[in-house]
Amino acid sequence: MAGILYAIPTPLGGSAADALPVSALNTIRTLRYFAVENAKTARAFLKEVGMPCAIQDLDIAVLETDVSQHIRKLQEKHSIGLLSEAGCPAIADPGAALVEAAQREGIRVAPLVGPSSIVLALMASGLEGQRFAFCGYLPREADERKKKIRELEARSRRERETQIFIETPYRNDVLFASLLEASSDRTLLCLATDLTLPDEKIETRSVASWRTSRHAIGKRPTVFLLQSANR
Amino acid sequence: MAGILYAIPTPLGGSAADALPVSALNTIRTLRYFAVENAKTARAFLKEVGMPCAIQDLDIAVLETDVSQHIRKLQEKHSIGLLSEAGCPAIADPGAALVEAAQREGIRVAPLVGPSSIVLALMASGLEGQRFAFCGYLPREADERKKKIRELEARSRRERETQIFIETPYRNDVLFASLLEASSDRTLLCLATDLTLPDEKIETRSVASWRTSRHAIGKRPTVFLLQSANR
Repeated sequence: MAGILYAIPTPLGGSAADALPVSALNTIRTLRYFAVENAKTARAFLKEVGMPCAIQDLDIAVLETDVSQHIRKLQEKHSIGLLSEAGCPAIADPGAALVEAAQREGIRVAPLVGPSSIVLALMASGLEGQRFAFCGYLPREADERKKKIRELEARSRRERETQIFIETPYRNDVLFASLLEASSDRTLLCLATDLTLPDEKIETRSVASWRTSRHAIGKRPTVFLLQSANR
Repeated sequence: MAGILYAIPTPLGGSAADALPVSALNTIRTLRYFAVENAKTARAFLKEVGMPCAIQDLDIAVLETDVSQHIRKLQEKHSIGLLSEAGCPAIADPGAALVEAAQREGIRVAPLVGPSSIVLALMASGLEGQRFAFCGYLPREADERKKKIRELEARSRRERETQIFIETPYRNDVLFASLLEASSDRTLLCLATDLTLPDEKIETRSVASWRTSRHAIGKRPTVFLLQSANR
């Protein structure tokens, strides 16, 4: 029997013990092979997890386009932990190619419980949670970005679903300005900032209300959620 | 200052200690007021969490359409834990009306980390995780259901996103049969069954391959994920 590919969520900034259930931490402690987005942060995370061996004795390989070495390891009956930078691997993050290859080879993939910024933001937003779409990043070019925002509003109204998207932190306020410019007054916009951290702030307001707030997000990691007014 | 509304994910069938980080369990232990989907399962969950008081001394109110009593409690500086049946409140589950009212009143909503079947399934599916949509339940009527499946295929191709949906467990195999009938051979379909449980099975195959598998899901809780072939 082949090894298991564990998809391991990592903290959004806090500690490993605060982000994962004890059972998940225990599973990670049994692993010796890791496929990771970034070796340095992976080592820091594994140190926090309290691996029962020295970190330098672990086999930590950075994820590359060619995933065949990892598949070979799994077929040689070694289990592998898949780690991305913050949150869930393969969701708005690298890792899907390895999971896809494992699925194709009939290798078991086991996801561990941990933080997903998309789910945390949606749960606390008060926006439509029976239907929602995650759209990743919006276009960088200002006019295209505004066009996309209007498309998301139209889709939210048509499908009655919340639209969720993210931005590179240093561009948060550029995106926020575009949202205030392009969206309708009554569209609801939630900003979910610094999730799971001491300064966490999750606030849902109409675009009209945000416009008068003079709010600035700064470079704090933020999830954006938008819902058109149907009523 | 008002109390805090904690959005608390609950286990998908396993134990509370296996589903939530220690920090989340500790937060829950400080609460005395709960707004819940089902009082009986909420009491069982809180017993597992190890509340520092007798369960009968807790104030456990079932969620109703009118959330004003909960908002009043929050304004009286009492924090409340919001619990749904399995997984995350307000996501494919009740609770959004209370969260929405809290957001409108400027009350802080804090989401705790725990299991989301949608995220666990997507992470392990190997399907597109940079863009995805959760669509809830598909229509019950056979022809409408098939029409919807073809719409989801078209949308998956057009938006290059994974489509995620669920079904009442006793109707799993009816939905599965419709999927095999209505979808294209090369469409990828993932069945994520019994997530986080000992019999967990997460398998992604082409519709053509599922057709020859004679697989039956049975009444085990399952998340369905679909991705059209683009290539």
